[in-house]
Amino acid sequence: MPSSRIVSIRVTPVAFADPPLLNAVGVHEPYAIRAVLEVETEDGVVGLGETYGDDGHLGRLRRVAEELVGVDIFHTGEVARRCAATLSGAVGSDHHGLTGPITATGTALRVYSSFEVACLDAQGRLLGRPVSDLLGGAVRDAVPYSAYLFYKWAGHPGAEPDRYGAALDAGGIVEQARWMVETYGFRAIKLKGGVFEPRAEVEAVRALREAFPDLPLRLDPNAAWTVATSIEVGRELGGVLEYLEDPTPGIDGMAAVAREVAMPLATNMCVVGFEDVAEAVSKRAVGVILSDHHYWGGLRESQSLARICSTFDLGLSMHSNSHLGISLAAMTHLASVVPNLTYALDTHWPWKHEDVVAPGALDFVDGAITVPRGPGLGVELDGDALARLHEQYIACGVRERDDTRYRRSIEPGYDGSVPRW
Amino acid sequence: MPSSRIVSIRVTPVAFADPPLLNAVGVHEPYAIRAVLEVETEDGVVGLGETYGDDGHLGRLRRVAEELVGVDIFHTGEVARRCAATLSGAVGSDHHGLTGPITATGTALRVYSSFEVACLDAQGRLLGRPVSDLLGGAVRDAVPYSAYLFYKWAGHPGAEPDRYGAALDAGGIVEQARWMVETYGFRAIKLKGGVFEPRAEVEAVRALREAFPDLPLRLDPNAAWTVATSIEVGRELGGVLEYLEDPTPGIDGMAAVAREVAMPLATNMCVVGFEDVAEAVSKRAVGVILSDHHYWGGLRESQSLARICSTFDLGLSMHSNSHLGISLAAMTHLASVVPNLTYALDTHWPWKHEDVVAPGALDFVDGAITVPRGPGLGVELDGDALARLHEQYIACGVRERDDTRYRRSIEPGYDGSVPRW
Repeated sequence: MPSSRIVSIRVTPVAFADPPLLNAVGVHEPYAIRAVLEVETEDGVVGLGETYGDDGHLGRLRRVAEELVGVDIFHTGEVARRCAATLSGAVGSDHHGLTGPITATGTALRVYSSFEVACLDAQGRLLGRPVSDLLGGAVRDAVPYSAYLFYKWAGHPGAEPDRYGAALDAGGIVEQARWMVETYGFRAIKLKGGVFEPRAEVEAVRALREAFPDLPLRLDPNAAWTVATSIEVGRELGGVLEYLEDPTPGIDGMAAVAREVAMPLATNMCVVGFEDVAEAVSKRAVGVILSDHHYWGGLRESQSLARICSTFDLGLSMHSNSHLGISLAAMTHLASVVPNLTYALDTHWPWKHEDVVAPGALDFVDGAITVPRGPGLGVELDGDALARLHEQYIACGVRERDDTRYRRSIEPGYDGSVPRW
Repeated sequence: MPSSRIVSIRVTPVAFADPPLLNAVGVHEPYAIRAVLEVETEDGVVGLGETYGDDGHLGRLRRVAEELVGVDIFHTGEVARRCAATLSGAVGSDHHGLTGPITATGTALRVYSSFEVACLDAQGRLLGRPVSDLLGGAVRDAVPYSAYLFYKWAGHPGAEPDRYGAALDAGGIVEQARWMVETYGFRAIKLKGGVFEPRAEVEAVRALREAFPDLPLRLDPNAAWTVATSIEVGRELGGVLEYLEDPTPGIDGMAAVAREVAMPLATNMCVVGFEDVAEAVSKRAVGVILSDHHYWGGLRESQSLARICSTFDLGLSMHSNSHLGISLAAMTHLASVVPNLTYALDTHWPWKHEDVVAPGALDFVDGAITVPRGPGLGVELDGDALARLHEQYIACGVRERDDTRYRRSIEPGYDGSVPRW
């Protein structure tokens, strides 16, 4: 029987240019940072993973990587065990708060997740099978994504305007949506809110409804609103939104809103790990869970989360952070095997123009990505691009994502606290 | 990329000799029936599955088998879809009621489960990997089982006494336990109850506690008791049983008992599918779910059930029906990868002396089975034994398990209704 033990793991931080996308806690910095994992086995197979690039997380990835040498890539349960044992209660931070509180369990799962994906990629390459086949096989050939709209400045301060243009009111958002829908064919639209006072964002949603009468709409103010404001906006947008995402912080707050509005509430902020599910279910706080394999513990745990959702009559969609092609491939394989992942997934994909994977494997047709049929994740690392984005990481100086700090460097009085309306 | 499409499926009913084990609804017939599946791919690989052998189930297996030709063994999601589509709402029956009510969903899952196991076995054989590796890798090298004690007659009426002897009171049960613990090394004991009036079974449990002061004990009366009797017995055996299994029928009844007794209640009768979980959780009806891959939808769905249990703070153990080596191998692989399957599993294994798999792969040491490391399930079909047990099936005439009917053929006035104490 072949033994496929890990002989080395490379962890490479990279940075890619990111436009000034506004959100409830500030604005995206000029570079988004990620870590690329290359897990090499004694068979000479290399599996790819992608995760957060913050300093603290990088340190944890490297500590765990040393402990994984000698583990078989098929033994992801053992990988999980070593992650937890090595990190032994360490608690990380995401410095932006956009994915809710982080526990010790969540910290270990954030590390494990990316190694699990890399192990599955390596398994698939070794076996000549797509990752979807290792998870029960795709039940759909293509995975639909949504147009992820952001309020944004014309460019980063002090730099040239970027290719995307400004979007600071309803008109700008509709224009952005037209570009994105025309370019990618998306059939669902999400607006990142929590940037302007709620009335302005309601106006933008109404303008989107008028411009795109047939596309489902979502609004995500990232917990920027009080319960009272959330109820007011929720009632106003009843029948307009397919779901309202994280209007207000916490399970109790979400439950209070859920009782008073017609549409389901979605979350990637108050239910962010298995330990949050029981309370959310008993309090009926949310109707849709936005999964994210980067912090729910990888692809297989995300499949179990999907089964929890169908068991407790919860909807299931998928959250996105700024990411590269390895993550997009992983998200696509996962979504392809989950029968009840019926909402279009979120992705920041249109907001970047450089990557570490060779182009061509992940193209949008009618807003969807065809599930790659090649071995593993079906994407190939471009060594030159990896080196270039690593150099960019070294040069750019960003070591922790902190949207609030960056915005305050531009507007010293900026208040990034939530809820603030 | 290799294509591993199914080219043929053989469904072979078999019968193996079964002693007169007593339970709440009657007594085991002289032969237990099962179906053996052989799923053959165009690569020439054959994957094994094992499931119920009742006529109705056999018919459904064969109908679905025809629809699976051409499906890739890695696409178990598609296998599940075809099972549901082919059976389109058919509702089966188990004729004994020992695994709770059966829905259309459950009927399709019972069929799918065995095909999923056969596909996973075939995948593992093709890849040279044990099934456990396809599920994330074993987190334990050996899986502990429990001594499954039964009240029993000395032999089937009209036949010679069997090798096991009679066990019709506390003394007989303790003697049976000694044999089983000495022979197999079991470190947990379960008594199948619901046979005699509760006082006699409490006495048997107390005798077991005295004879085996260090072994966890369980009692399973298969819903033979009212709520009041269950509470009375539960209070009496507080601190003696690690769990009390299905004392009374239904989620509401179990919840009423759970509120009044100290030990957790376990079930394989009132929570038998994902659609039962939400109600059981909200009513706090059970503390332990007894999984069974034969009706929960196979090995991967059982992994998701395990995650549901850890998420909702439920214990997890495993249920057994009379089975052969293919099922024991599947149970062992599954249990090896589930971190929270910490209770010793149930098995009827010691009660049979013939099998369709070649001996040697599944031996008990200290009450546990070492997880097979060979490809797939790690067991080999013995063609001669399969033919012999199939001939036995043809000759024995048993076509549906019906413990009540058989017992009534011996004791015409027997009352198999539950609850009856």
